[in-house]
Amino acid sequence: MEKDKKEISPAVIHRMPRYFRYLRDLLNKDILRISSDHLAKLMNVTPSQVRQDFCTLGEFGQQGYGYNVKVLYNNISDILGVHSKYTAVLLGFDDLGKSLISSPLFAKRGITLKAIFTSCDSDSPKSIDNIPLFSHEEIESFCAGNPIDIAVLTVPFTEAEPSIRKLKKYGLKGIWNFSAEDTNPQEKDLLWENVHLGDSLMNLTYQIQQKERTEKKLKTGGSPV
Amino acid sequence: MEKDKKEISPAVIHRMPRYFRYLRDLLNKDILRISSDHLAKLMNVTPSQVRQDFCTLGEFGQQGYGYNVKVLYNNISDILGVHSKYTAVLLGFDDLGKSLISSPLFAKRGITLKAIFTSCDSDSPKSIDNIPLFSHEEIESFCAGNPIDIAVLTVPFTEAEPSIRKLKKYGLKGIWNFSAEDTNPQEKDLLWENVHLGDSLMNLTYQIQQKERTEKKLKTGGSPV
Repeated sequence: MEKDKKEISPAVIHRMPRYFRYLRDLLNKDILRISSDHLAKLMNVTPSQVRQDFCTLGEFGQQGYGYNVKVLYNNISDILGVHSKYTAVLLGFDDLGKSLISSPLFAKRGITLKAIFTSCDSDSPKSIDNIPLFSHEEIESFCAGNPIDIAVLTVPFTEAEPSIRKLKKYGLKGIWNFSAEDTNPQEKDLLWENVHLGDSLMNLTYQIQQKERTEKKLKTGGSPV
Repeated sequence: MEKDKKEISPAVIHRMPRYFRYLRDLLNKDILRISSDHLAKLMNVTPSQVRQDFCTLGEFGQQGYGYNVKVLYNNISDILGVHSKYTAVLLGFDDLGKSLISSPLFAKRGITLKAIFTSCDSDSPKSIDNIPLFSHEEIESFCAGNPIDIAVLTVPFTEAEPSIRKLKKYGLKGIWNFSAEDTNPQEKDLLWENVHLGDSLMNLTYQIQQKERTEKKLKTGGSPV
């Protein structure tokens, strides 16, 4: 069976970015071979999970000899599109946007952040952290020579909507969405990855509350919830 | 069966923050009753999913009459710990930390951000966005009168580790972790919620690449991957 004809399950895909991170760390430490037992211990999963996941991707290991870290890393990078050299722009400019562009998030995944589009006037800076800053009106002239794959959205969708429509004409493929809104129903032809930080925070408060309730029940002799 | 003895599955819990957001929006629009069909349409899920999820939580609906939005919202808020009035501190202060404290994220979930602990000197500001700023050395004197439930970590774990140990003595329960490290193995007694923004970005590039490959295969007459 050809490698690219294999079906990779969503559960395995969901774990790929984590493997990517751990394998990158191993390479940075010049560790070129690792056993499933050792990798599993690092990642706090079972060795059989690791073996099963990598088996789905192809035959990268050899019994008693471990995995070739570089081969695995390159394959997983390929699957995740890290080698595809996608381009991105930031739509709107707020504190969250500023923190994203000042982090190595994009470069580490092979993505080039090409520009920031925001409401700006003649007094606005020409660039921030070496990323050029333009007004929304300049999107079309910019895109003519610079096709953009990903729009990063940290401001409300309605504010960025006209810019998204313009970017689509030039081949926009996906939205990395930090806005309060889930996937916009008008823009279903785009791929959306929604980051809801508030949902994550509530997952934590839920866990805390469950633990408190269980402890309380155990103290009072009741059964845990 | 008592309500608090019901077992709520992890899959339902995972959907709760989304229900919380949509119900809050409905209340903000003074919509006090909603049918499962209408809510399902808003949230882009099936009506039977909505009915099944809410059935797990208790009997909040009435055939042909819809759900009481306020009752549902209050129950889900309770389950998620929104009414528990937890307290949090930010450990370290970088661009991401700054963007988190300037957002309404905490207040919207009933969490009070009490302080920022960072490396600071006499020239540092005394507060940022009305949140007092202290040096790491001041944690213990601060906590004596201010128990803290949640530490928000945007800097590397090693940098924040001494502060986390101090906070634990005063009852710290969980870490909202934006650092590159997954759950620290030394701190398993704490509850961790990890936010890996890079993983999310790779989920998007994976989707884009899959779509491109499928389109390419269809064009060349091959079977989609």
